[in-house]
Amino acid sequence: MTEHSQWIWYPGDYEIWLHQKASVLRQYRGYICPPSWRLDAAYTSVKFRRKYELAEPAELILSAQGDFVALLDSDMTPIPYKRNPVTSIRLPAGEHTLSINVYNDREIPALYAAGAGIDSGNGWEVTALNGSWLPAAHWNFDEIEHPPQAFPFSYKECDPVSAEQRDEGELIDFGRETFGYVEFHDVKGNGGIQLYYGESREEALAGQLAETFDVLDVDGSVAQVWRTPVTRAFRYIHIKTNDDVEWGSVKHLYEFLPMDQRGSFRSSDGRLNDIWELSAHTLQLSMREFLYDGMKRDRWVWSGDANLGFLINNYVFFEQDVTKRTLIALRGKNPVDIHINTIMDYTFYWFLSCYDYYLYTGDLTFIRSNYANMLSLMEFCLNRRNDKGMMEGYPEDWVFVDWAPMERRGALTAEQLLLCRSMETVAYFARELEDDRNERKFAALAGELRERIFQSFWDEERGAFLHGVWNEELQRDILKYPSMFGVRFGYLNAAQREAVKTGVLMNESVQKIITPFMRFFELEALCELGEEEHVLSEIRNYWGGMIDLGATSFWEEYDPNLPPELQYDMYGDKYRKSLAHAWGAAPIYLIGKYILGVQPVEAGYSRYTVEPKQGVLEWMEGKVPTPRGDIAIYMDSDRIVVTTCSSGVGTLVFGSEGMPEASEGKLTPLEDNRYELLLEKPDYTYEIKLNH
Amino acid sequence: MTEHSQWIWYPGDYEIWLHQKASVLRQYRGYICPPSWRLDAAYTSVKFRRKYELAEPAELILSAQGDFVALLDSDMTPIPYKRNPVTSIRLPAGEHTLSINVYNDREIPALYAAGAGIDSGNGWEVTALNGSWLPAAHWNFDEIEHPPQAFPFSYKECDPVSAEQRDEGELIDFGRETFGYVEFHDVKGNGGIQLYYGESREEALAGQLAETFDVLDVDGSVAQVWRTPVTRAFRYIHIKTNDDVEWGSVKHLYEFLPMDQRGSFRSSDGRLNDIWELSAHTLQLSMREFLYDGMKRDRWVWSGDANLGFLINNYVFFEQDVTKRTLIALRGKNPVDIHINTIMDYTFYWFLSCYDYYLYTGDLTFIRSNYANMLSLMEFCLNRRNDKGMMEGYPEDWVFVDWAPMERRGALTAEQLLLCRSMETVAYFARELEDDRNERKFAALAGELRERIFQSFWDEERGAFLHGVWNEELQRDILKYPSMFGVRFGYLNAAQREAVKTGVLMNESVQKIITPFMRFFELEALCELGEEEHVLSEIRNYWGGMIDLGATSFWEEYDPNLPPELQYDMYGDKYRKSLAHAWGAAPIYLIGKYILGVQPVEAGYSRYTVEPKQGVLEWMEGKVPTPRGDIAIYMDSDRIVVTTCSSGVGTLVFGSEGMPEASEGKLTPLEDNRYELLLEKPDYTYEIKLNH
Repeated sequence: MTEHSQWIWYPGDYEIWLHQKASVLRQYRGYICPPSWRLDAAYTSVKFRRKYELAEPAELILSAQGDFVALLDSDMTPIPYKRNPVTSIRLPAGEHTLSINVYNDREIPALYAAGAGIDSGNGWEVTALNGSWLPAAHWNFDEIEHPPQAFPFSYKECDPVSAEQRDEGELIDFGRETFGYVEFHDVKGNGGIQLYYGESREEALAGQLAETFDVLDVDGSVAQVWRTPVTRAFRYIHIKTNDDVEWGSVKHLYEFLPMDQRGSFRSSDGRLNDIWELSAHTLQLSMREFLYDGMKRDRWVWSGDANLGFLINNYVFFEQDVTKRTLIALRGKNPVDIHINTIMDYTFYWFLSCYDYYLYTGDLTFIRSNYANMLSLMEFCLNRRNDKGMMEGYPEDWVFVDWAPMERRGALTAEQLLLCRSMETVAYFARELEDDRNERKFAALAGELRERIFQSFWDEERGAFLHGVWNEELQRDILKYPSMFGVRFGYLNAAQREAVKTGVLMNESVQKIITPFMRFFELEALCELGEEEHVLSEIRNYWGGMIDLGATSFWEEYDPNLPPELQYDMYGDKYRKSLAHAWGAAPIYLIGKYILGVQPVEAGYSRYTVEPKQGVLEWMEGKVPTPRGDIAIYMDSDRIVVTTCSSGVGTLVFGSEGMPEASEGKLTPLEDNRYELLLEKPDYTYEIKLNH
Repeated sequence: MTEHSQWIWYPGDYEIWLHQKASVLRQYRGYICPPSWRLDAAYTSVKFRRKYELAEPAELILSAQGDFVALLDSDMTPIPYKRNPVTSIRLPAGEHTLSINVYNDREIPALYAAGAGIDSGNGWEVTALNGSWLPAAHWNFDEIEHPPQAFPFSYKECDPVSAEQRDEGELIDFGRETFGYVEFHDVKGNGGIQLYYGESREEALAGQLAETFDVLDVDGSVAQVWRTPVTRAFRYIHIKTNDDVEWGSVKHLYEFLPMDQRGSFRSSDGRLNDIWELSAHTLQLSMREFLYDGMKRDRWVWSGDANLGFLINNYVFFEQDVTKRTLIALRGKNPVDIHINTIMDYTFYWFLSCYDYYLYTGDLTFIRSNYANMLSLMEFCLNRRNDKGMMEGYPEDWVFVDWAPMERRGALTAEQLLLCRSMETVAYFARELEDDRNERKFAALAGELRERIFQSFWDEERGAFLHGVWNEELQRDILKYPSMFGVRFGYLNAAQREAVKTGVLMNESVQKIITPFMRFFELEALCELGEEEHVLSEIRNYWGGMIDLGATSFWEEYDPNLPPELQYDMYGDKYRKSLAHAWGAAPIYLIGKYILGVQPVEAGYSRYTVEPKQGVLEWMEGKVPTPRGDIAIYMDSDRIVVTTCSSGVGTLVFGSEGMPEASEGKLTPLEDNRYELLLEKPDYTYEIKLNH
């Protein structure tokens, strides 16, 4: 085996296959809960090919996941091989094309080839016999003995932090929200062990009302280890048995994706530090094969949820393989029959996520390989516009926006803003990929739509976007969503920004947002409008409120006004709320982007800004990961210390009452006692003395 | 279980699933031979639903192929059930909608429900979570214990008709081409038994050069039955062993689809009778889950081959479920990436097959359920037209027409004729389904194309179609194909018909056709041009020629001019030719339609013609199956006896030198000593005395 060889397959099929298997693992009291959208499958029959030139005949080591046949050039007689898991074929000298068909209806058809200068790491193409050849895909499956099957998770054995004897058994507590298997060691006897899982203590003690439970049937008399058959999300487990079964110890096998926690944040505010750390734990739990919403529920991949998770990840783990897998899985295969996750807005978030991915990573290769899928998804959207060029929900669509009362029929302003931004994204990628025709087409479409949105929905008098139009009637309600998106996408001028800030976003009489999902965009918009102090205080109160209620990870939904005994309710079920939901980790993003103040300006941080906002904090420090290494920031009232990453050019912007002094570079004064410093040196620590 | 209950599934998915599994059963000397086109898969996650109204709560008996969960109305808490293969749920009284999600990644997700007045036989809808609900599909899986898995074949145990000891073992002969497993009874000892299969004696004796072989590893000392692991097509088997293995007897388990041989033909010409019977056997071998080309090779489903097979079947078995399954499997799922079987003409034959299916059966329900798939396949074609509105092969396309030397680049006249006929077919179905917009659209497109074909390719002087145009240059060769299609589709006027008959089809200097595939259309065209006598003689010579070479079924290809020792060659391989190829059964169609002379005029034989052509035969008799029962014909030089089917109106047309006399009805004289008689009475035997 050479070090270049890898398992290869049809592009996207590992992700599509894995997504299907992973999407049906959710259970509810023992019943399956398949997602409410189409699940796609990998192609079962694919053909790999590789041109080669050999001076002498050579042996090619081969292994396939599936049954295979190898052919040379146009010869229809197979090249013989022995039916071993690892085998070899003899390649004749000269210039030839080797083709290998692989069929597999269980796992993805995949191939490993090593030797003869044509290792499966590069130069191989693949077709699903659908008229086109693509470069074969690969990912981290480098060993011929380990084809791409189960996802390569890591595991860690954990002991409970406490155990409490109850009349009917024992309640064990692992100290914080976790995920994985449960093991019983030194088991003796015969009978059933019941496990009731709880993200909360209350849920674990609710018996058959717990959302998930397992029964282990123990039938051995020899002391041994029994493991639960499926992975579960929990903190507590209520273990019961009515039978003659004993065990020595209960352990938990934590299943996770190993990731470096590259981003960090510490400050003089301990509560804020706790919120940051719990946010990181919350996101870690959802970042696995894909970026899930939450591992108890829904244990599904949702495009809107993932959009936030990706952004948060960019400020803590910067693990981009999860993002790529998730974007591929969400897009699925053609034809596009329905919106992603059946939700109209979630189709748009997919485009926005592609944009964010490229902005933070600069990875144009991935964008290029998904560009055809972007165009066809956008085509699906274009075909669903009404005669005003706007998108309304079809009967089979879910128009979500947020969990909040609102009119969902007709053309919602928030949805048109998302569509407009999606079109801009396609135009932007078309430009990056030198597809002039589509750049012009989508830039024009986006420009027209943006104009129409303002004509139709911007109320100059009230200084706000109206909600939308239904049945030819303007819906005059004012909700926060269009304002948040308008700010986010840079669609508002200075006067409009000021108007929505005071009249909508900071207006106590406008309907409040109670999901961390939309709080993310709300608080982001407020940061964009210079309200970082207010946002920090909101973070302390809202996320801190969950900690006060015992949270060890952040929730799917939190309404501070509900009594504690109703906090776990959802969908009319006592414990259905997810207590570890990726979007709950928003503070990492808000702090990284607006308090530490680091963000890319050009794709992949080739240009970036650092604009730290210490505010009421006595001091703060932290790191923000980039594809070029980490950017480190320290700030107190006397100084700012910034260590740059290994390439790219940053711009440091900061306020200083007196004249500051930089260890390197030329300070440029801006308005409002603010200064700018170009961070040109890579891997360099700039120190700025403030207020001199 | 009530008698109405059936296993139900997502429409088309049983066929798609079965097609994928069946398509990879072909082997070549032990290696897989996956087809060179995309194989589609069934959806893995589907949701069934049924509205009901109950006065009292009731039990619904349930079984699912796959894991399932049942929900009532919008309630998110599952209806509980026991995890038995057959279980039940309790339905509350009132008006409700019951939904059942089924997930299965191995077989198709399927459901059986019985009781409560909502048996799964009717009223159930299903979605693949792709935005639309369709009526659930079902087919002959009526027993709750037998979900839709393996295809329900029949089996018959057969003994060899002879066995011949050879130095290295024995050669057994089953007397004619067959298909299935081989069993060794009363086996003793240890070691391997090698089986070399031959459609010909020569192939079986060729050892490792045989196309298919098996090795049975026998490891028992107790006398027992050993069966080969896979089904094979063969007549002869050369059995060898080098080990200490003995067996009592070798038997063959013939695997087949049981069908009534409703059609028949007997005449004063024994050779013709033999050809008809061998044709029936040939077709029977290929009619199974689907209509295959041939069971040794390719053991695949090809649209052009199937087009002929369907037509032949209409004159012998009239087994339409095979046709329906085949049409669904060939069309596959969306998106359409490439032509059916990758062959441009084979896409067109799919449309033609749909037309034929409807003409012979009158089954508009099937056409309606496939109409969306017709439109999208035609859309794919429309998008591939060149600036002259004609279709040329793309680089990834196979332009087949026939195995014969010809220019395949550019726009071939034969292909445009097929495209034109396909467009007419879509227009025709649009009319039947009252889709006015598409009727107008495709009628106009077909009309324009037909005009352009004549303008571009009809050479008035030579009285023939030219071959095509490539690179802006007219290809002036004259081949038979466009003439055959022109006659077949009724595109030629009387003068043009006469011109192509004498100048092309009967012209010895025009390149001869050597495949039974195109001989089918050639001989059909000659029959249409009144050359039934000539055609009968061709059948006697060409098909009779194969019998003279020992055929027990008809071949994929036959060139009477080749020496016997080269007759089994194909693709440069000594025994690769298929000796039982569905399209070899053409005589049944030609005899049924033009000699017995029965054909539908309106869909489903609501109007039909009977125009028997006794010709040089002293007498002939036969039956032609219709959806309304069989039509029986007897004819000799003195009389014609026709027994009508149970409904529909036929027209008998026949020649008579003297004035004929009919037992019933009024004879109308036509030109050329021909007469017409309306066959108005159902299930009635008309007798006509000739030449009085």
